[in-house]
Amino acid sequence: KEMTSAPEQELLCIFGTGDFGRSLGQRLLQSGYRVVYGSRRPHSCGPLPQGAQVMSHTAAAAQSASLVFVCIHREHYDFLETLAPELKGKVLVDVSNNLKKNLYPEANAEYLQRLIPGAHVVKAFNTLSAWALQNGPSDASRQVYLCGNSAEAKEAVSEVATKLGLTVLDRGSLTAARELEDFPLQLFPEWRLPLRLAASLAAAFFFYLLIRDVVYAYAEEGKDISFRIMVSLANKVFPIVSLIMLALCYLPGVIAAFLQLYRGTKYKRFPDWLDRWMLCRKQLGLLALAFASLHVLYTLIIPIRYYVRFKIAESTISKIKENKTSVFDTTLAWRADSYYSMGILGYALYVLLGITSLPSVSNALSWREFSFIQSKLGYLTLFFCTLHTYLYGGSRFLSPSTYKWYTPPGYILSLVVPSVVLVLKLLIILPCVDRTLTRIRRGWERTDPEDDTKKSLLT
Amino acid sequence: KEMTSAPEQELLCIFGTGDFGRSLGQRLLQSGYRVVYGSRRPHSCGPLPQGAQVMSHTAAAAQSASLVFVCIHREHYDFLETLAPELKGKVLVDVSNNLKKNLYPEANAEYLQRLIPGAHVVKAFNTLSAWALQNGPSDASRQVYLCGNSAEAKEAVSEVATKLGLTVLDRGSLTAARELEDFPLQLFPEWRLPLRLAASLAAAFFFYLLIRDVVYAYAEEGKDISFRIMVSLANKVFPIVSLIMLALCYLPGVIAAFLQLYRGTKYKRFPDWLDRWMLCRKQLGLLALAFASLHVLYTLIIPIRYYVRFKIAESTISKIKENKTSVFDTTLAWRADSYYSMGILGYALYVLLGITSLPSVSNALSWREFSFIQSKLGYLTLFFCTLHTYLYGGSRFLSPSTYKWYTPPGYILSLVVPSVVLVLKLLIILPCVDRTLTRIRRGWERTDPEDDTKKSLLT
Amino acid sequence: KEMTSAPEQELLCIFGTGDFGRSLGQRLLQSGYRVVYGSRRPHSCGPLPQGAQVMSHTAAAAQSASLVFVCIHREHYDFLETLAPELKGKVLVDVSNNLKKNLYPEANAEYLQRLIPGAHVVKAFNTLSAWALQNGPSDASRQVYLCGNSAEAKEAVSEVATKLGLTVLDRGSLTAARELEDFPLQLFPEWRLPLRLAASLAAAFFFYLLIRDVVYAYAEEGKDISFRIMVSLANKVFPIVSLIMLALCYLPGVIAAFLQLYRGTKYKRFPDWLDRWMLCRKQLGLLALAFASLHVLYTLIIPIRYYVRFKIAESTISKIKENKTSVFDTTLAWRADSYYSMGILGYALYVLLGITSLPSVSNALSWREFSFIQSKLGYLTLFFCTLHTYLYGGSRFLSPSTYKWYTPPGYILSLVVPSVVLVLKLLIILPCVDRTLTRIRRGWERTDPEDDTKKSLLT
Repeated sequence: KEMTSAPEQELLCIFGTGDFGRSLGQRLLQSGYRVVYGSRRPHSCGPLPQGAQVMSHTAAAAQSASLVFVCIHREHYDFLETLAPELKGKVLVDVSNNLKKNLYPEANAEYLQRLIPGAHVVKAFNTLSAWALQNGPSDASRQVYLCGNSAEAKEAVSEVATKLGLTVLDRGSLTAARELEDFPLQLFPEWRLPLRLAASLAAAFFFYLLIRDVVYAYAEEGKDISFRIMVSLANKVFPIVSLIMLALCYLPGVIAAFLQLYRGTKYKRFPDWLDRWMLCRKQLGLLALAFASLHVLYTLIIPIRYYVRFKIAESTISKIKENKTSVFDTTLAWRADSYYSMGILGYALYVLLGITSLPSVSNALSWREFSFIQSKLGYLTLFFCTLHTYLYGGSRFLSPSTYKWYTPPGYILSLVVPSVVLVLKLLIILPCVDRTLTRIRRGWERTDPEDDTKKSLLT
Repeated sequence: KEMTSAPEQELLCIFGTGDFGRSLGQRLLQSGYRVVYGSRRPHSCGPLPQGAQVMSHTAAAAQSASLVFVCIHREHYDFLETLAPELKGKVLVDVSNNLKKNLYPEANAEYLQRLIPGAHVVKAFNTLSAWALQNGPSDASRQVYLCGNSAEAKEAVSEVATKLGLTVLDRGSLTAARELEDFPLQLFPEWRLPLRLAASLAAAFFFYLLIRDVVYAYAEEGKDISFRIMVSLANKVFPIVSLIMLALCYLPGVIAAFLQLYRGTKYKRFPDWLDRWMLCRKQLGLLALAFASLHVLYTLIIPIRYYVRFKIAESTISKIKENKTSVFDTTLAWRADSYYSMGILGYALYVLLGITSLPSVSNALSWREFSFIQSKLGYLTLFFCTLHTYLYGGSRFLSPSTYKWYTPPGYILSLVVPSVVLVLKLLIILPCVDRTLTRIRRGWERTDPEDDTKKSLLT
Repeated sequence: KEMTSAPEQELLCIFGTGDFGRSLGQRLLQSGYRVVYGSRRPHSCGPLPQGAQVMSHTAAAAQSASLVFVCIHREHYDFLETLAPELKGKVLVDVSNNLKKNLYPEANAEYLQRLIPGAHVVKAFNTLSAWALQNGPSDASRQVYLCGNSAEAKEAVSEVATKLGLTVLDRGSLTAARELEDFPLQLFPEWRLPLRLAASLAAAFFFYLLIRDVVYAYAEEGKDISFRIMVSLANKVFPIVSLIMLALCYLPGVIAAFLQLYRGTKYKRFPDWLDRWMLCRKQLGLLALAFASLHVLYTLIIPIRYYVRFKIAESTISKIKENKTSVFDTTLAWRADSYYSMGILGYALYVLLGITSLPSVSNALSWREFSFIQSKLGYLTLFFCTLHTYLYGGSRFLSPSTYKWYTPPGYILSLVVPSVVLVLKLLIILPCVDRTLTRIRRGWERTDPEDDTKKSLLT
C-alpha cells in the first residue's frame, strides 16, 4: 500500500488549564494529536503548550472533538451540566483525584456520569502525575488504569494512552472508579500490618531489656549504665526483632501446609487471617532485612566505641597489674568464629533475598527460580540466623546468672518462633509427609478417592 | 469468526547487512514477517538470518516492500538517490546513528528525506542496539522513539515495533530526529552538574584539610603525618561533601516555597537556575549517598588500621608506665554512642531513599508514597545526619585549639548549609505559613482575591 | 464519531477450572470479556469467578466461542479429541506446562495440534502464574510469549493479551512451543557455568590454603589453629576467588580483540567457547561482587574476634614486660592505609557496577552510558582491586619465609589472571593498536583493502 497524504490528525479537547491539563496537552501534541483547550478564562492561566488552540466558548470546544478530557476539580463539575447537550455521545475522560479518601459519597467519575448521563464517562490517567506526563514515562510508571461502562469509549481512551507510550489496564465498569481514585491516596497499605508488628515487637523488647539490663544494674549494683541504651541495647533489640520477623515470614506457609494435610484438600479456603498474613510476607521479610542491616552496622562499630576501648584497655592494664596469664581457649575461638561466620552468611543470603524481591529482578526470574530463592534459600537464611543466635548463647543457657530477676535473656525469647518454624518445616519435608502434600497440591483429595483421575482433569 | 487459511505475511525490506541489519532481520523473521535484504554485495557480508531473501538488485528489493529499513551509514545515503523513483510513496525507516554530536548540519533522517522527497521518512529504532534486538528486549530497554512527518507512515512503523514486543513513543515530526540521534550519544547529561559540584567540593575540602592538618603539623610541630591522606583525610572529606550535597537536595525546594510565598502565586515560572537545580536533585542525592557509603566503609576499617592499633597500644603502655588511672566518663559515653547511633540511623534512611529511587521501585509507588519517602523521610535523614555531625563536634566548638591558624575545622563548615535548610524548613511547616503555601499550591493567588473561586476552576 | 450503544462483548471459552483457569477467567471478566467455562464436573471444583457461565456440555461451550483456552493437564488432552468437530477452525490456546523437561517426545502444544488438526493451536500464557494473573501484572512480569502456525490466530491471542495489560512477544511457529514450555522449568541456566566455576575455585583454594596454613602449622610447629578455618581462611578464599572471577569477566573481551586483530576482520565468528564465555560475563561479575562483599564483611568483623583481641592484648603485655619500644613506621602506615583505601574504592566501584546491572537501571541507560560503566569503570575496578592485592603483599614477595613447603601464598596465585588481563588491555589501548581495532570493528577488513569504501557501505 502506498501512502499519499498525511491523514488529518485527530482533535482532542481538554477542559481545564491546570498543571495536569497543560502537561497532558503537551504530550498529546507531541504524539501527533491536535488539541483544543476549553477554558472560560483563557488568558489568566499559565503558559499553554505551543500549537494548542484555546477556546473560551467551552461548548464549541466540546463539540469539536469526540473525546474530552475533564481536567478540573470535582467541585466545579456542576458547570459541565450546562454543556450536557454538547457532550451527549462524547467520551468524557475523568482524570480527577481527591485530597482525601471518602470525601464524597460517590466517586468523581460516577458523579460526572450522573451529571451528564448522555456521555460515556471513562475514568483514566488519574494515577499519573503531571510531572510523569511531561517528562515521558521512562522514569515513572507507564501503567494507566481505566474503567467505564462503555467498551467502545474505553477502547478509544486505550488507543490514546497507547499512542502516548503508556500501557493500559482495564479494571472493568465505572463502579471501579472509587478504587482507582483511591490509588494515588494510598500510603503503603500493605506495609501497615508489618510495620505495626515490627514497632510493637521492638518496643516490647526494648522495655524488657531496659528493665533487665539498665534498671537491674542500677537497682542491684547501683551502677548507671544508661548510656548503653543508644548502642548496646539497640543492638540487642534489632537482631531479636529481625529474627522473629524472618521466622514469621515462613510460619504462615508452614501452617497452610499443615492445614492442607489436616483437611486433605486444597480446595477449601484458608481462614482470613492466614490469607492476610501470607499476603504480607514480602513486607515482613524486607522489614526483617532492615533490622538485620541495622544490627550489622551497630555490630561493626563496636570496636570504635569509647566504652569498648576503655574496657579493653582496662582489662589489659588489670592483667598486667595482677600478673595473670590468660590461656588461649581454642574451643571458645571456634565458637566465636563460627558465630560470626554464620551471622555473615545468613546476612549475605538475607541481602540476596532482598535483591531478588526488587520488582525488576523478580520480573526477570521464572516462577521456579523465584520460588527456589524465596523458599529454599529463605529457609537456609532462617537456619543460618537461628544457628548464629544459638552460637551466641553458647553454654550460657545453663548458667543461672543469665536469668536476672528470673527472666530469660532476650535472645532466648527470640529463638522460640524460628525454632518452631524450622522443626515444623523439617516434619513437612519428611518423604512420607511431602508425598501426600504434593498430591494434595496437584488436586488430589483424600475424601474422594474413587474418581481421582477425573478430578485432576479440572486442575 | 473462523479462520480459514493463514494470510500472506507482510514483506519488509532491509538495506544494509551490517550487525544492525542482520539482527533486525532475524527479529522480524521471528515475529512472522518476510524479509528481503537489498545489498550490492550479497556474498561478502556476514551470515544473514535463515529464511531471509537477498537481492543484489536493490531497486527490485525496494519495490517489493512498502516499508524499507535503511541500515547503512549516512555517508552512503547518496547511493539511495538513484532509487528515488522506486522509493516513492514508501515508508523509509532511518535507524542510523552518528559517531559524534553535531557532525553534520542536519539530522540523518532529515538528510534522507531531502534526498528522497517522495518517500515518507520515519526516524526510529536508533536507540536500540543490535544486541538488544537479537536477544529480545527482556534485558534492555523496550522503548522505541520515533518521529516523522507522515502520521500514517509512523503508524505503520509503530505496528512493526509493537509486533516485535517493543513499546513506541511518538516524538512528533521529523524535526525531532536530531534529538533522537543524539540520544545514544549522551553520556549522563543529567549527572554532569552534580558530578562537577561533588568534585569541586571534594577538591576544595581536601586542600583545605590538607593544609589545616598535614601542612600545619609539619610546619608547626615538624611531624610528618602525610600518610593520613589515604584514610583519615579522605574520611573527613567524604562525610563533609555528603552532608552538604544532601542539604543541597533540599535547599531548592525550600527556596521555591519562599519564592511562591513572596510572589503569592504559583503561576510565575521559577528562575532558570532554580529549575535546573530542582531537576538534578535525584542525582545530587545519589552522589551524597555514594559519599556517605564511602564514609561508612572508611570509618569501619578504623580499628584494623596499623596507625590506630599502634596508638591504642601506645596509650595503654603509657598509662601503665605513668600508673595513671583514667575514670570512665558516662557523659562522654552517652555522647559518643549517640553520635554513632545518629550516624547509623541517618545512613539507614539514606540507603532507603536510594533504594526507592531505583526506577523499578519508584514505579511501584503511588505519587503520595513517593513524595512521603523523598520529602518526609528525606528531611528526617538530613536531620539525623546533621545531628550526627553536631554530636561529633560536641563541646569542641568552643575550644580555641580547634581553630588552627584561625581556620574552623571542616565539619563546622559542613554544618552551615544543612542548618540553614533545616531552619527554613521549620519556618515553612509552621501552621500559619503552611496554610498559605498550601492555598497557593492549589491555585489561589494573593493579588486576585475577588474571583478566587473561578480561578481555581482552571487548576 | 458518536458512540450509541455498547457493542456486545466477546465471548471466550476456558476448558478446565483449576487455579490457572479460574484466575484467567477472573482477569478476562475484569477486562470486559464474557467467559464460559467448559467443565465436566462443574459443581465439584473450587469457586469460579462471579459473572462466568459454566457449561457441563463442553461441546456447546466450545462452539459458543471462537477462542478456547485449554487449561487442563496434558494427560487429559485425549478427551479433547472427541470435540474435534466443534473445535474445527477455532483458536486453541495451550497454556500448559510440564513438571519436568523432556517428559514427552513432543511439546504439549504440538501434541494438541496433532490431536485436533483442524484447530489453530497457539502456545501462550504458560510463563505466567495464576498468582500474577489474579493480582495484576504490576508485581510480576508482563511478558507473554506466544507461538503458533496461524498468524491470524496469534493475532487474536495477542489482542486478548494486550487487553489484559500484558505485552506480547511472538516467537514464531509452533516448533518454538517446546522452548516456551521449558521456560518456566528453567533454574538459572545462565548461572550454572559461573556458579560451578566459583565453587571449583573456592574449593581448590580452600584446600590449598588449608594445607599451607592449618596443616603446615600442625605438622611443622604442632599448633592447632584449626579454628581459623571459620573466619581467617574463609577471608583468604573469598577475595582470591572474587579477584580471579572479576578478571575472568574481562579476559574474553581482551581475547576477542586480539582474535579480531589477528584475523583482520570482524566477520568471522568467534569460537563457541568464547561466545559462551562472553554471554556469562554479567553472572561472573555478580558472583565476584558477592564474594567481594563477603570479604568486606569478614574483614570488618576482624577487630571484634576473640582471637584478635587476645593477640592484641598479649602483644601489648609482652611489650611492657620486655620493656621494648616500638617505633612508628611511616612507610608501613602509608602502605597499610593505601591498601585499605584501594580496597574500599575498588569495592565501591564494584557495587556501582552491580547496581547498574539491575535490569531497571540498565534499561534507563543509553548504550554508550552502559558500555562506559561496564567497560571503563570495570577496568578501573579491576585495577584498584589488583593494586589492593599487590599492596597487601607489599615486600613479602621476596621473603623466603612466605613460601612454606615451597608453595606461594594464595594472593600471589590470585594475581596472575588480573595482571595478564591488565597488561593485555594496556596493549590494546596503545594508539596504534587501538586505531586498527576501531577500523576493524567498523567493518574494515585487512585482506581486502582495494574496495574498502564499498564494503563499509554494508555495515
